Amino acid sequence: MQYPAPIAKLMNSFTKLPGIGAKTAARLAFYVLEMNEADVTEFAQALINVKRDLTYCSVCGNITDTDPCMVCADPQRDRSQVLVVEDPRDVASFDRMQEYHGLYHVLHGVLSPLEGTGPEDLNIAPLIKRLQDDTIQEVIIATNATAEGEATATYLSRLIKPAGIKVTRLAHGLSVGSDIEYADEMTLFRAIEGRREL
Amino acid sequence: MQYPAPIAKLMNSFTKLPGIGAKTAARLAFYVLEMNEADVTEFAQALINVKRDLTYCSVCGNITDTDPCMVCADPQRDRSQVLVVEDPRDVASFDRMQEYHGLYHVLHGVLSPLEGTGPEDLNIAPLIKRLQDDTIQEVIIATNATAEGEATATYLSRLIKPAGIKVTRLAHGLSVGSDIEYADEMTLFRAIEGRREL
Repeated sequence: MQYPAPIAKLMNSFTKLPGIGAKTAARLAFYVLEMNEADVTEFAQALINVKRDLTYCSVCGNITDTDPCMVCADPQRDRSQVLVVEDPRDVASFDRMQEYHGLYHVLHGVLSPLEGTGPEDLNIAPLIKRLQDDTIQEVIIATNATAEGEATATYLSRLIKPAGIKVTRLAHGLSVGSDIEYADEMTLFRAIEGRREL
Repeated sequence: MQYPAPIAKLMNSFTKLPGIGAKTAARLAFYVLEMNEADVTEFAQALINVKRDLTYCSVCGNITDTDPCMVCADPQRDRSQVLVVEDPRDVASFDRMQEYHGLYHVLHGVLSPLEGTGPEDLNIAPLIKRLQDDTIQEVIIATNATAEGEATATYLSRLIKPAGIKVTRLAHGLSVGSDIEYADEMTLFRAIEGRREL
C-alpha cells in the first residue's frame, strides 16, 4: 500500500518548503487531515492570495498589497532618511522596534560574485533614482555583517557619496544582553573599534 | 508597519501546524511568495483535496480515497491475519516493509484514562465485528510500547481471546543495529525476557 493519492500529493507539496523533510511532511499532512475544515480552507486561500495579491512596492521594493506600500504612502514618515536592507523581513524587524520613522529600500539580495549576483540583479537602480530629488539626506545601509553584506555596503557608499548624500552604516558590536566570554573575535574587534567616549 | 494582510494570514495558518512557531511561519510564508505559481496552486489544491477526498475505510478505519480501502479490497491479501495499529501512519510503516501480507485495523488512538479515552472512543467495535465470521485466525497487536499501548494490547487480548482467536503482540527488544551500551533498561529487560534458543 502506498499512501492514498490526496495525502501523498499534500506531503509532496510540504516537502517543497525549506527545512521540511519526508517525515515532517507526513506528520503535517496527517495533521491537516484532522484540522477543522474552515482552517484548511483558510490556509489554502491564504496560499493563493499571497501569490495573487502581493507585489513589490514600485518605490522601495518591499512586499505590499497596495502600491506604493504603506510605509512609502505614509505622510507621517520622515522622508529625509532611507534605510537600505537586504530582505523584506528586515523591514518588518526594524518596524517592530518602532524607533525608526524614516523610509526603507529593499535590495532583494546582496552582491555576490560567487553566486553571480551583480549590481544589475539587485534593486539598486531604483534607489539611485529615488536619491535624485533632494528629499533624501541620509542613506543608512543595513545589510548583514557578512562578507557579501559588507561588500554591498561599500559598493553603495561609493556610488551614493559623490552625490553629496550622507551614507551611514549600522553599528556593529556586542549584542545587548550578550556575554563577552562567548562573543566571536570579529564582534569583539568591531566592539573595540567602534568604542565611544562615556 | 505590520506585514501586509495576505502574508500575515498565511503566517497565521502556518503557525496552526504542529512544531511551527512564528519565526518558521514567517520564513515559510516568504518562501511561498518566491515559489512558482503552479506549485502554490497545487499546494492549495492538495490541502482542499485532503479534506474533501479522504475518508476512513469502513472496514479497517485506515485513511483512504476509496471505500473499502486498497488493502481491504486487495484479493492478494491474506485474510486470516489482522494487524492492529494505533494510527494510519503505522499502516504505511508496516507496508513499506513489504513482508506483511495480511490485513490491518486502525484504532485511532489508545486507551488513556488520563486523557479520558475509553474503549468506546476507539475503533474497537468494528474490529470485534470483523472477527465474527471465521476468516480471521490471528490478531497481531502492534500498539506502541508505551504504558497506554500496553494497556490497550492487554484490553484487546482479554476481549478477543475468549472467542478462540489467536492474539499475538509484536516482539520487543533491541533495535537492529543498536548498541547495547545505549539501550534503556526497559528495552534490555524485554530483550532478555524475550530471548530465543539458538
